[in-house]
Amino acid sequence: MATRSRSSAKPNVFYAQSGGVTAVINASAAGVIETARAHKDRLGKVYAGANGILGALQEELIDTSRERASTIAALKHTPGGAFGSCRYKLKSLEENRAQYERLIEVFAAHNIGYFFYNGGGDSQDTAHKVSQLSTAMGFPVTCIGVPKTVDNDLPITDCSPGFGSVAKYVAVATREAGLDVASMAETSTKVFILEVMGRHAGWIAAAAGLAQEEADDPPHIIVFPERAFDERAFLAKVRQTVERVGYCVIVVSEGAHYADGRFLADAGVVDAFGHKQLGGVAPALASMIKGALGYKYHWAVADYLQRAARHVASATDVAQAYAVGKAAVEFALAGKNAVMPTIVRGKGARYRWSIGEAPLAKIANKEKKLPASYIRRDGFGITPAARAYLAPLIAGEAETPWVNGLPKIARLKGVRVPKKLPPFTV
Amino acid sequence: MATRSRSSAKPNVFYAQSGGVTAVINASAAGVIETARAHKDRLGKVYAGANGILGALQEELIDTSRERASTIAALKHTPGGAFGSCRYKLKSLEENRAQYERLIEVFAAHNIGYFFYNGGGDSQDTAHKVSQLSTAMGFPVTCIGVPKTVDNDLPITDCSPGFGSVAKYVAVATREAGLDVASMAETSTKVFILEVMGRHAGWIAAAAGLAQEEADDPPHIIVFPERAFDERAFLAKVRQTVERVGYCVIVVSEGAHYADGRFLADAGVVDAFGHKQLGGVAPALASMIKGALGYKYHWAVADYLQRAARHVASATDVAQAYAVGKAAVEFALAGKNAVMPTIVRGKGARYRWSIGEAPLAKIANKEKKLPASYIRRDGFGITPAARAYLAPLIAGEAETPWVNGLPKIARLKGVRVPKKLPPFTV
Repeated sequence: MATRSRSSAKPNVFYAQSGGVTAVINASAAGVIETARAHKDRLGKVYAGANGILGALQEELIDTSRERASTIAALKHTPGGAFGSCRYKLKSLEENRAQYERLIEVFAAHNIGYFFYNGGGDSQDTAHKVSQLSTAMGFPVTCIGVPKTVDNDLPITDCSPGFGSVAKYVAVATREAGLDVASMAETSTKVFILEVMGRHAGWIAAAAGLAQEEADDPPHIIVFPERAFDERAFLAKVRQTVERVGYCVIVVSEGAHYADGRFLADAGVVDAFGHKQLGGVAPALASMIKGALGYKYHWAVADYLQRAARHVASATDVAQAYAVGKAAVEFALAGKNAVMPTIVRGKGARYRWSIGEAPLAKIANKEKKLPASYIRRDGFGITPAARAYLAPLIAGEAETPWVNGLPKIARLKGVRVPKKLPPFTV
Repeated sequence: MATRSRSSAKPNVFYAQSGGVTAVINASAAGVIETARAHKDRLGKVYAGANGILGALQEELIDTSRERASTIAALKHTPGGAFGSCRYKLKSLEENRAQYERLIEVFAAHNIGYFFYNGGGDSQDTAHKVSQLSTAMGFPVTCIGVPKTVDNDLPITDCSPGFGSVAKYVAVATREAGLDVASMAETSTKVFILEVMGRHAGWIAAAAGLAQEEADDPPHIIVFPERAFDERAFLAKVRQTVERVGYCVIVVSEGAHYADGRFLADAGVVDAFGHKQLGGVAPALASMIKGALGYKYHWAVADYLQRAARHVASATDVAQAYAVGKAAVEFALAGKNAVMPTIVRGKGARYRWSIGEAPLAKIANKEKKLPASYIRRDGFGITPAARAYLAPLIAGEAETPWVNGLPKIARLKGVRVPKKLPPFTV
């Protein structure tokens, strides 16, 4: 195909954000774009997909060369996905080969030689396939994964950029709200429940455990998705805690479930319209406690607030998010392909990290759950091993510029690259 | 009564926290204690009520003189009520005179000449009554109110300490989560709902409006308790917003209600146990939208997180909270009684504030609602007048010391003053 011949011009770069966003995914974008800009001798422009991979399929490419250096720098402190993300998983090659071919067509039309895909396990799988297929189709594209997920469930890498900040948010919220509950407990709220993200893995819930410095500090109970929920043991623990400490702070993962697999959040809460309510394990637990023990309760569901809270981001996380974006470009320039930069934890008591690499084939579609050794024997707390792993990830307060009492954010122009191809129906 | 004669020793001070706590109520405590310590020539010790006024009734007094200066200073950055608060309103004099007499007995037994009551309207009412009754009972106690409430509903004062910080939290959360929703809207979440506090007054919900800098910025809809909820107009606005902007961010006050007074939160959500769910206007709205318009949604309920979030407190609010504590002691030393320090806003474009005073009789049991002129004509947003009022209150980022990635908090010894009286049943 004529359009697939590599132009003699310097190859351009395609960058896309994928899946649920984080407080620091834009720091990775800044790492990619700033590093690419520093290598103008070898790299053309960086095009970002509008709404992730959909931007490539629909040829909606944002020309980041039209953005000021100060705007790109501001991405380091702007949460969300500045170019738009998407929940859109490419089908398998067998099921929809046309999608992959379209991707390569768009890459060829815009002389894209490098594809940086910023996402979780599914995205690394896609990047891997594109790498293979582009070669097979005679228009080889270098594909590098850029890790991102608040769920911290990517394998090989010590942690996933995005996790450290949500971990810090949850630990801070637990400490702060715990002080509030403690003050009110004598005459009012005895139980406070904070629902956090993590449908399959309890990393985020575990991070709440960092708020506990002294034995009776909150959180008093953590409910993990790795353990089947035992209502009797849970209620006994709530009662014991209220009787001994005076109040009880509970952090529950949205993925908490019974032994038969039913989510607590799907425990049958029905609204005024007769619809089953989605989400809401915190109110479900609150009702359970009220019914069994009669305690006055409050509950909070942090939802997007936890993963968007750039104002309380971990400095370690922001640095790592930027570093993986930077490393992705450096890997590509070094001739690597189908790999993903990873975070490697150094040996020794003092936390150090460096950048490693992993083949995409080993990342794709694997989930790293909280190890059993990180969950306390009673199932309701974290172990010292978990604490040792988690503590460095929330360390440091990332710089946040403020204007008029609010966090300053990047405002992109978002200039589109002119289309060269006919439309494509996704 | 012998126990009611004033001792020749310097009179001691009684300080108590009341009602729902805030991110900065302990800064007021620090203002009281540090100022009292600076006047040791005239003032004895500061005793704090364990769990607020209950501490006086039960003679559970915390001797703050046993706390280090550094601990008292740390109260300035510790959220919650460090001495314990309570939801406990003294009955009227006619209904339970014995309670008031007990208070005076305890004050007399511990040579308390000054009572600083840190709370909202109800507390100012109590302080006022104690002032009158103590005189009538021949043991006059100087009673000074110290304003506090996240609801910002105290009259006369320009704002209430505690409000600026929750306002900042809500504005920051709206901006951050709004960026998240914007990134996901193409393929996933179209509507995000944040539920905030304010059962009777919409001040907190209004503060979310500060997040909006450009016309289509979040929040796109604010639902105030000052306006009857109009489901049709609301759903039309949601649909128009999603169609024009691509997504819709809604901030709703927990006090949102229909024209007949029914709270949206009580719209009939029933849990697995058949209990009516308390709270949860956000999930109720989410279901309404899903049912009528079919949009994918996410919702968050900040609950205690919003009023405990000292890590993102307004510097203006912290300064004012400290200042009213300090002024309360200075007022007392100047011979004033039955008054409350207020925040007075200066004239002119640049925000300035100073301390004024108001008689407790004029504060008690009055609620300041959001003026009609602060709510946009369509009922779903704030006016420039509201913005001008609110903006200075969230200005500045209060200093927060961090240790191991978490906010450092005061840990009190909480040494009790030995009891001198027989027990009293509250």
